[in-house]
Amino acid sequence: MQKYLVEDEWKIIEDRFDRENHQRSESLFSLGNGHMGMRANFEETYSGPTLRGTYLAGIYYPDKTRVGWWKNGYPEYFAKVLNAPNWIGMKFSLNDDDLDLNRMKVTRFRRILNMKEGILYREFTASWPDGKAIKVETERFLSINQREIGAIRYTLFPLNFSGTLDAELYIDGDVVNQDSNYDEKFWEPVDRTENADYSYLSSRTKKSGFNICIAMFSDCSIPSSQTVAVPEKKSCIDYVAHRYVFDVRAGDQISFTKISAVVTSRDYPAEFLPGEAFKLLANAINSGYEDLKNQQISAWAKKWEYCDIIIGGDVPAQQGIRFNVFQLNQTYSGHDPLLNIGPKGFTGEKYGGSTYWDTEAFCLPFFLSTANKEVARNLLIYRYRHLEKAIGNATKLGYKDGAALYPMVTINGEECHNEWEITFEEIHRNGAIAYAIYNYVRHTGDESYLAKYGLEVLIGISRFWSQRFTFSEPKQLFVILGVTGPNEYENNVNNNWYTNYLAVWTMGYTLESIYYVKEKYPERWNIIESKSKFRLSEEPGMWNRIMDHVYLPSDEKLGIFLQQEGYLDKEQLLVTDLKPGERPINQHWSWDRILRSCFIKQADVLQGMYLFGDHFSLDIIRRNFDFYEPRTVHESSLSPCIHSVLASKLGYIDTAYSMYLRTSRLDLDDYNLEVHEGCHITSMAGTWMAIVEGFGGMRVIGSHLHFFPLLPRQWKSLSFTIHFRDHVLLVSISTTSIIINDQTQSELLIFINGTGYQSLPGISLEVQL
Amino acid sequence: MQKYLVEDEWKIIEDRFDRENHQRSESLFSLGNGHMGMRANFEETYSGPTLRGTYLAGIYYPDKTRVGWWKNGYPEYFAKVLNAPNWIGMKFSLNDDDLDLNRMKVTRFRRILNMKEGILYREFTASWPDGKAIKVETERFLSINQREIGAIRYTLFPLNFSGTLDAELYIDGDVVNQDSNYDEKFWEPVDRTENADYSYLSSRTKKSGFNICIAMFSDCSIPSSQTVAVPEKKSCIDYVAHRYVFDVRAGDQISFTKISAVVTSRDYPAEFLPGEAFKLLANAINSGYEDLKNQQISAWAKKWEYCDIIIGGDVPAQQGIRFNVFQLNQTYSGHDPLLNIGPKGFTGEKYGGSTYWDTEAFCLPFFLSTANKEVARNLLIYRYRHLEKAIGNATKLGYKDGAALYPMVTINGEECHNEWEITFEEIHRNGAIAYAIYNYVRHTGDESYLAKYGLEVLIGISRFWSQRFTFSEPKQLFVILGVTGPNEYENNVNNNWYTNYLAVWTMGYTLESIYYVKEKYPERWNIIESKSKFRLSEEPGMWNRIMDHVYLPSDEKLGIFLQQEGYLDKEQLLVTDLKPGERPINQHWSWDRILRSCFIKQADVLQGMYLFGDHFSLDIIRRNFDFYEPRTVHESSLSPCIHSVLASKLGYIDTAYSMYLRTSRLDLDDYNLEVHEGCHITSMAGTWMAIVEGFGGMRVIGSHLHFFPLLPRQWKSLSFTIHFRDHVLLVSISTTSIIINDQTQSELLIFINGTGYQSLPGISLEVQL
Repeated sequence: MQKYLVEDEWKIIEDRFDRENHQRSESLFSLGNGHMGMRANFEETYSGPTLRGTYLAGIYYPDKTRVGWWKNGYPEYFAKVLNAPNWIGMKFSLNDDDLDLNRMKVTRFRRILNMKEGILYREFTASWPDGKAIKVETERFLSINQREIGAIRYTLFPLNFSGTLDAELYIDGDVVNQDSNYDEKFWEPVDRTENADYSYLSSRTKKSGFNICIAMFSDCSIPSSQTVAVPEKKSCIDYVAHRYVFDVRAGDQISFTKISAVVTSRDYPAEFLPGEAFKLLANAINSGYEDLKNQQISAWAKKWEYCDIIIGGDVPAQQGIRFNVFQLNQTYSGHDPLLNIGPKGFTGEKYGGSTYWDTEAFCLPFFLSTANKEVARNLLIYRYRHLEKAIGNATKLGYKDGAALYPMVTINGEECHNEWEITFEEIHRNGAIAYAIYNYVRHTGDESYLAKYGLEVLIGISRFWSQRFTFSEPKQLFVILGVTGPNEYENNVNNNWYTNYLAVWTMGYTLESIYYVKEKYPERWNIIESKSKFRLSEEPGMWNRIMDHVYLPSDEKLGIFLQQEGYLDKEQLLVTDLKPGERPINQHWSWDRILRSCFIKQADVLQGMYLFGDHFSLDIIRRNFDFYEPRTVHESSLSPCIHSVLASKLGYIDTAYSMYLRTSRLDLDDYNLEVHEGCHITSMAGTWMAIVEGFGGMRVIGSHLHFFPLLPRQWKSLSFTIHFRDHVLLVSISTTSIIINDQTQSELLIFINGTGYQSLPGISLEVQL
Repeated sequence: MQKYLVEDEWKIIEDRFDRENHQRSESLFSLGNGHMGMRANFEETYSGPTLRGTYLAGIYYPDKTRVGWWKNGYPEYFAKVLNAPNWIGMKFSLNDDDLDLNRMKVTRFRRILNMKEGILYREFTASWPDGKAIKVETERFLSINQREIGAIRYTLFPLNFSGTLDAELYIDGDVVNQDSNYDEKFWEPVDRTENADYSYLSSRTKKSGFNICIAMFSDCSIPSSQTVAVPEKKSCIDYVAHRYVFDVRAGDQISFTKISAVVTSRDYPAEFLPGEAFKLLANAINSGYEDLKNQQISAWAKKWEYCDIIIGGDVPAQQGIRFNVFQLNQTYSGHDPLLNIGPKGFTGEKYGGSTYWDTEAFCLPFFLSTANKEVARNLLIYRYRHLEKAIGNATKLGYKDGAALYPMVTINGEECHNEWEITFEEIHRNGAIAYAIYNYVRHTGDESYLAKYGLEVLIGISRFWSQRFTFSEPKQLFVILGVTGPNEYENNVNNNWYTNYLAVWTMGYTLESIYYVKEKYPERWNIIESKSKFRLSEEPGMWNRIMDHVYLPSDEKLGIFLQQEGYLDKEQLLVTDLKPGERPINQHWSWDRILRSCFIKQADVLQGMYLFGDHFSLDIIRRNFDFYEPRTVHESSLSPCIHSVLASKLGYIDTAYSMYLRTSRLDLDDYNLEVHEGCHITSMAGTWMAIVEGFGGMRVIGSHLHFFPLLPRQWKSLSFTIHFRDHVLLVSISTTSIIINDQTQSELLIFINGTGYQSLPGISLEVQL
């Protein structure tokens, strides 16, 4: 844990320069706009430890697999989102001394991420060994309404000297990925051009052949001077720059503006890229920096209207949740169904920027509730578009007849991961994709989605499950052998309860959906039936047989479901039995010891209790929670949130709150000392869950919205906005009441603690608690 | 499968030159003498595909681990036996045309490995495009009585031309390992010197710091000429050579002799290496090539006396077994307890030349029966010397109080392997090391070994087992969770019968040995007790509790032991259900599918039936064999032999014979198309088992030697020699009788098919069958 930031409701603030924290801050202060993003690298040269990272959504490279011992079925490549050409770069030298905070004495330093505005600010005063001192103020943002535009204002104030300023504002295409498997370079230069005002750098990724073009405009103004500084344009093979050299005096204010347009062949034909970049850049410059900045501030204000969460009486919690909501919105905007959410977003390289089950299991609820349904729908369509590849993946692993296994890790639908116990066995991910369809339909009421997209995916997944079950002679039941459940601290186990339950649930929901689509959209059904070669007379029968004879391990005496068949054979210890020096166990124990132990990385049976909360009585949920939570070490960032939601449900409010704290400020306070690698973007959605679904008790049961509010003692109030079907509800909870304002023009039946209330347009619904 | 060799009882013969087979032959015709070895590379330049390999026993390099996903507990390095400087090299050019079979027309070619003599012969006739033709005859051997000496005679016969011969006989230190993880070079040059007759090259391995020095003498004789060719000595940084340039005529016979001494800092202080090489080389040259060659032939003749197996009426089988026996003797001579047996011996780089459980489980019986007991004893002492490291290894993995886990793969006692399911979980290897001690003591009668060495190892291993067992509440029995048995087609299973059985057996044998040593060698026991801090009042009690309450999974209805607890939950298929195109399944099925299937890679329960044959009735062995063998795909080279022995025992003679064939000519006929990587040295001992323990039915029960002979229909007779305790027995079996000649001067009670006979010195014991 490393607490070094100033608490503030709307800003992330670092108020002194500590080289030790720099890479942390590079992650935490990251900017993104769904199209592109970057770590909070300094614009100017920094010779100290830094992870330079600029990322373009969906621009990836298939990095050759690195593996110790090859297993049949492994993919040849890991498709990774790339570190892209660095277009924020600026070099300054004053009388031949480089501006480089690593080599200067920094007397004042503030870095501020203003989340309300979506702008990164920095100001510092620093001096060189010869006593020259300079003040600098910077602003940077990635426009969220003109996603291809980014802008920087960089202002220098020579404090006590006169001399020559040599400034070079550049784009550098010679970048590497820190996590490259074989130290390959992933980019090759294509071209560079310039015209009167702009410079362009065009690059292409090797193998995957994505083209990009970055155009750059620069400007320098010195209010005290009448001269207009005109840059010299420089370029070499993968580098373009504008160089300014002029004399400055103490008291001057020299302000550089750099605006870039970043376009990719994902959006335009490669040959048009420079032209498109030109148009976008010209348009942006026509607006001007200040106007772009104001647009950014209003766009973010509008976004916050729908996704802000206000916590009364707890500034750290308030800052934490805003940070999480802000980063989620920076990472994914929902404008492009070919994009998805990497575990680190645009804040680092780890996990290759790829899509995991995190999207469906953790991120989807956030986007369902905080944005128009198209955003969540695009997350679903992403998987729909990968259905053929998921079928191909299953076929490669020996399945047949259109069974689909979605990859554990992917960018383009192909499996990237190469640990057999995960790649081949952590198959519950397939169920999460089915559940997400159910969740989307239930939340939005958009049942047409099933007919258009959802059902084909469900059929593929159910077919996979039906083939993955085998019949056990000794048990006379269907079993699923050899899986890894959500708790990755058990591998290759038999009959993971969560996986088995999810599998039969999927088959049931698929059958329901088949009959629904068949009846409501018969023409569409005919197409699906023929496309998927569905054997209506045969497949449902098999699925029903499995559903009726599935093995779901449980222990009668304890009254719990068993995480897996052999769980109780393990030595039963509690987390409180562990010595502090042994935790986290994943850093102190050998892998086999972890696997043999009863300790759980993240919710497993309890993940099922969360997803299928209305299938089980509170008593059953309580018994499972009371058994499993004390055995859970929460060594996944995705763990505390689920436990927090369940603890709220069970009225364990202190547990819920302490779990909430672990997730909400996980990155800000760097609990696991790893934030320098990037932020835990997907788990941030879990923080949102812990508040809205936990403390707010929001649930959709059947087709109705429910709230079971219960605030932590530390909070005075809580309010949030919820999109539900066609309604947008502002929900305000205090210790004594819940007030719901429906901003739409229709009625809605809302349940508070189980009692139904009719919410009327324009009239606040207030219920005392 | 690739059958291209000529059948012969004593020789391996390749009688035409086929570039496709060259790398196969490089493996098959390998030479070794326990101290060093090499693939059958050509001495002269060969520009076609080749794997140049010269290996020095025990000279390794810690190659940095390559792994996709790091798991806690993995080793940082894989210690690999290195490709060493090439000292056989020769370059010839005739009128500026290189002698290079890849670029010439080869009209005649024979490569012969004379196993009786331990000499590799080659002869060929080849011509250049201009019509110049040359005949060449070569001989090469690695002396088995002067292990540091190797010798080559290379004779050229210009057939139809005159001109200039430019010959360079060299040592080249610039070598690489094909299986280097990061393409590093493992050697650095140290020095090169020369004196009147010899040249020396000294090299050192990086990191591990082994020094070696190779000294070379060369000579050229042309019987038809009076002139003595004197070489020019050349050298550069890691290369020394003797160059001969002179005119030759058609009909000349130009004979080069090259003798080298190869010494290492494993045997002498580094600074003395050139001096030691000089002494050895001078001594060898003093004897002369012909004498060295004759010594080699007699030394091999002597070796064969004790290890030859003669099969009547089956030349391919005869060639197969002699090849196996020959290669085993080339690989390990037992002269140095710091050395062991790599799965590829000196024939290739795969598996890093390291020691696996193959040594104890497969190779030890061969050396017990075919050599003086010191040879097998040195194999055991190898592990004794690694006890501290095995304790360290277990400590690293969380065990305590002197528990020892021997590595899965090692050279110097440290674990090298990095697959969690093997490294951490294939722990039955620990039991094999305990069993080997038992096997040695039982076979040799050398019970003092227990006191001197064995008991400490047994205590460490039993402590490991006792900690690895956990008590299962539901079963009320001790269980071993999360292991990989000998069948590596199941990973991370619970209660592998073989492992559990071996574990409790080890504890029982350890207790017996403790009481034996305590009584017979009380002073030694005091030392062991204090060194190992053995708690006599406590540990045996715990071990007994485990032994009395161990879970050994079985199925009453089938009357079999279960390979692991959940084995019968799997879909029960037979190998005959597999389509031919699916086999071998490890090349056609994804890894998870293999793991979930009931198919077995190699003997698992049956490995236990083999080791503990006298614990189970024939009926039980039969039921387990009948159940498991039809589910076994034998995709390990270590599989068929065990099945062959058991099939013989059960009277399934045809099965026994077909299993024997799969192991005996595995490499010669390249069953798995992989012999170019090297031969399966350790499984060769399994071939010996199949004959001696299978068809010969040799077993040691209690302290007595038994034979249960049963010949395959295809064989007329079988004879072999057995060392047993202080006896050396020549056993000859025909279809009707067994004749045993004891070559020693004392009586021995021998059992034939269960009936005891007294064998008297000098008198043949003949029993009708």
